[in-house]
Amino acid sequence: MQTLKRLPGLGYRSAEKVALYLLVENTKSTIELVDSLNQAKSVLGPCQNCGNLAEDELCSLCSSEERDASQLCIVEGVTDLFAMERAGIFKGLYHVLHGKLAPIRGIGPEHLNLNRLRDRIQTGIVSEIILALGNDMEGEATCHYLNQEVFNGLELKVSRIGFGLPSGGGLTYADEITLKSALEGRKQL
Amino acid sequence: MQTLKRLPGLGYRSAEKVALYLLVENTKSTIELVDSLNQAKSVLGPCQNCGNLAEDELCSLCSSEERDASQLCIVEGVTDLFAMERAGIFKGLYHVLHGKLAPIRGIGPEHLNLNRLRDRIQTGIVSEIILALGNDMEGEATCHYLNQEVFNGLELKVSRIGFGLPSGGGLTYADEITLKSALEGRKQL
Repeated sequence: MQTLKRLPGLGYRSAEKVALYLLVENTKSTIELVDSLNQAKSVLGPCQNCGNLAEDELCSLCSSEERDASQLCIVEGVTDLFAMERAGIFKGLYHVLHGKLAPIRGIGPEHLNLNRLRDRIQTGIVSEIILALGNDMEGEATCHYLNQEVFNGLELKVSRIGFGLPSGGGLTYADEITLKSALEGRKQL
Repeated sequence: MQTLKRLPGLGYRSAEKVALYLLVENTKSTIELVDSLNQAKSVLGPCQNCGNLAEDELCSLCSSEERDASQLCIVEGVTDLFAMERAGIFKGLYHVLHGKLAPIRGIGPEHLNLNRLRDRIQTGIVSEIILALGNDMEGEATCHYLNQEVFNGLELKVSRIGFGLPSGGGLTYADEITLKSALEGRKQL
């Protein structure tokens, strides 16, 4: 149960419920779960290039010839990459940082997937970087760090995704920071 | 109860609940409510200039000398204006359309507060228009109509508020249209 509790999103009660389900109510599913996890563990791992989930050394995106390798979209986690892919709006490649800078929680540049990023942008293949990190202080700090410390001096077009009103959202229910972003990010017609 | 049911946000059950509260459980509050409504009705009305709620002919914003009359922010409703004012990020004046173009629901340009808008932009005082309408099809259609039919040929800087990720929002939970807006609205660093 202690191990279950460490999984993201599971608290004491949920961990207890899962443990009882697996060990008392439905013991067959325990074997299934162990098998699936073992199998997934032996087949899947991080892509050596971008940090995405991969079956081989490279993920399906990095090994695809249909993606535009000159565009690199930097995301915090693999779920962000999945969200972008589901939207089907980006044809370049990704780089997953596996986190954001958060000095308060002790997460510094050394905890992020930056070494591989440095290698990738040194090759000269990448010409455009799109920083797709969230609209919060940690995202802001990470973008600032990357721009100053990693991309500095390189011939790269660096941009950050737009912030403002989300789709279908009216002004009435938007918070102040979102409204500020929307006003600052207004586009000439 | 039929009249209560017509109020926005009140369905059959809520209207019943309110009616019973006012007529059976707490009859004193009925008199209070009638008095407050009568008083509010006699004191408050739409601003003759912008459509905001006003105690006099002009609302407190239109009659203020501290607002920048050269900037005009166009919003759908008074609650949007309130949201912008709460955020304290805009120092110009507003124009409330009291709706958006919605041909499917039979709402055409003749239903919007456009005549007064035409008068306002003819005076030459306004130099910048900020379209602060929602990120949906009706908002899009209204912006397009205003730009083509109302602002056309006038020397005005017309912009639309930015769309993208809201404050604090990560990519993972954003819908596809929001991600598309965020990617298209990316800003060079």
